[in-house]
Amino acid sequence: MSQQGEDVVRAVYRLAPLGGDDVASFTARALALARESTLEVPVGVASASIEGGLLGRVIGVEPDADGAATARIDYPAAVLDGSLPQLLNVLHGNVSLLPGVRLVDATLPESVLEAFAGPRFGIGGIRDRLDAHDRPLVAVALKPVGLQTSELAELAAAFARAGVDVIKDDHGVTDQAPSRFSDRVGAVAKAVAEANAATGGRTAYYVNVTGPVDTMGERVEQAAEVGCGGVLVAPGLVGLDTMRALADAEPALPVMAHPSRGDVGPGRDSGVSPEVWYGLLYRLAGADAVVYVNAGGRFAWSIDTCQGLNRRLRAPLGRLRASFPVPAGGVSASDAPSWFERYGTDTLLLIGGSLLAQDDVEGAARRLVEQAHAAGSTPAPS
Amino acid sequence: MSQQGEDVVRAVYRLAPLGGDDVASFTARALALARESTLEVPVGVASASIEGGLLGRVIGVEPDADGAATARIDYPAAVLDGSLPQLLNVLHGNVSLLPGVRLVDATLPESVLEAFAGPRFGIGGIRDRLDAHDRPLVAVALKPVGLQTSELAELAAAFARAGVDVIKDDHGVTDQAPSRFSDRVGAVAKAVAEANAATGGRTAYYVNVTGPVDTMGERVEQAAEVGCGGVLVAPGLVGLDTMRALADAEPALPVMAHPSRGDVGPGRDSGVSPEVWYGLLYRLAGADAVVYVNAGGRFAWSIDTCQGLNRRLRAPLGRLRASFPVPAGGVSASDAPSWFERYGTDTLLLIGGSLLAQDDVEGAARRLVEQAHAAGSTPAPS
Repeated sequence: MSQQGEDVVRAVYRLAPLGGDDVASFTARALALARESTLEVPVGVASASIEGGLLGRVIGVEPDADGAATARIDYPAAVLDGSLPQLLNVLHGNVSLLPGVRLVDATLPESVLEAFAGPRFGIGGIRDRLDAHDRPLVAVALKPVGLQTSELAELAAAFARAGVDVIKDDHGVTDQAPSRFSDRVGAVAKAVAEANAATGGRTAYYVNVTGPVDTMGERVEQAAEVGCGGVLVAPGLVGLDTMRALADAEPALPVMAHPSRGDVGPGRDSGVSPEVWYGLLYRLAGADAVVYVNAGGRFAWSIDTCQGLNRRLRAPLGRLRASFPVPAGGVSASDAPSWFERYGTDTLLLIGGSLLAQDDVEGAARRLVEQAHAAGSTPAPS
Repeated sequence: MSQQGEDVVRAVYRLAPLGGDDVASFTARALALARESTLEVPVGVASASIEGGLLGRVIGVEPDADGAATARIDYPAAVLDGSLPQLLNVLHGNVSLLPGVRLVDATLPESVLEAFAGPRFGIGGIRDRLDAHDRPLVAVALKPVGLQTSELAELAAAFARAGVDVIKDDHGVTDQAPSRFSDRVGAVAKAVAEANAATGGRTAYYVNVTGPVDTMGERVEQAAEVGCGGVLVAPGLVGLDTMRALADAEPALPVMAHPSRGDVGPGRDSGVSPEVWYGLLYRLAGADAVVYVNAGGRFAWSIDTCQGLNRRLRAPLGRLRASFPVPAGGVSASDAPSWFERYGTDTLLLIGGSLLAQDDVEGAARRLVEQAHAAGSTPAPS
């Protein structure tokens, strides 16, 4: 809340040094940023009431120890319109094109949160559907691209027999000739259902519905018709609001969000922090589970970044449900117990390629499942 | 084309130095990148036919003078599925999350281009609709956010009387309380039509349809119904493929694309070059005119970057029409003649805030129009 008592979005930016920096130059950059994100006209063009009511306000500019500065800016909620595209535009629209500006934190008031339904299932809803409580969950991936639909269905059946919680398509398995979406969705769902019937299990198949945006609604319908337990969406490829629209629409299926294509890399001078992008905005856009690239894998993210992201996905956020953190990306199955311990029970661990590299994929998946059951309930680190 | 004669997408990445770099380490990074973008499984998991047919191929890795390296990778077209999201995923999906990788060039074979209709109007179609040939065009912006619909309509009438070619909404003027989309679209279109009727002019109003993705089709329909000359879309906020779907659908209106929210800043170690993002991918996604942040304005882009972008928007690209380059972003009206000379006739120059800062906005707009007419036909620099 600002001094006037009206609602504001509080954004925090890291301003990288650009040479010859001092507090005055950082402050000038913060003022320009606040104007760029809102009025986008030179001083003197807008009326006093518009300048007073809609211009972003620089609340503080503090030099950091590393030569950068932290700028805090309050955006009046009245500059928003209740939509995710306009929220993105204000937080990180034109300013994404400025040199040395990184969005590192954002806090939304209740009045802004109210416009978003958020996850329809969330951690609790996914657990109920899988009948998997009081333990971490495990997911595996169907890949690589190039496998025939029948081969993917066989692989899925093996994973289901092993009792994994979620089988997801690789995000790169879309609608290529060896496995068209319309063939795969039914064939794999059937293979998983048959394995579940044999074992009494509840394994869910999350089919990848990422594709041309004007086909995605239909793909979700097909997924629901054949009994898929959820869908995979890569909002970096189709737009965050495309995921939001699917999550809000019927039929209702859990949405797992894939991190492909983000300008989020830790340590960069530009872009958005993973905690804000995946931890806040993916959740706001309705992701029930959020895949991210885990520390220790192929992507060089720190444990602190991952823990920060986990916290944001689980922390109270208006009336929005919590989303499952899904660490992935070069995570080895043999390390699963240590990740369960580190990240706590409300974690859905995704093991991809390292499982497929085993001679006995089904046996390896079964050991992973046993590890998840053995982990039981572990409190999340604070 | 690869040695085997099959179609490939050729991508060029800049690999930033990460410390301790030599040709071997750059090559290892290029090989990992090619695998990440396609199969995303460890060596040995995929069959020989999948590795041979779908894995990205490192064609060359060359050290650059600045300590970075340039990696050329060919992606077999068979890894694509004819959709823009999957093309994005292969060019810059998971690899966008790797440290120090920047996509700096991409070349698409005919078989890939064929899946995309591209701009429906392009430079020629926009000129025909405006009856504006053999000269550069000028556009202006309605802003700031906070103005009432009636005030925006008055401003638009003044611009239309002055004879500007295109009046666009500011991309931050969306659906806020002072000017709801459904009110503004008709009121401003009417004001412009009345001014055109009085002057005999052909000024077009491009209304901003950026919003919740499940409302955008309806907004385009409303725009067509009330006689808008085109629409403004910010694909960075709603997804590139959302623009593509609108551009492919009925009703047919020219699409002007806004650059808000891109990970494109020149000089960055990550992201995508503006030439590829705005020059290739926006055009592929159907933008008839592409707004970008001009050199000499608020955004510190170089002339070389802007000229490279202009070239990509206008150069032959399969059967796709050329898109109008729209330099903007802190361009001063008084500098218009020099930009016409520098960028050539096939340029749509957008003057925003600097025009609004004049005491006599209509007079200033009229001088801008006179400058465009005086510029006449100037060949584009090669």
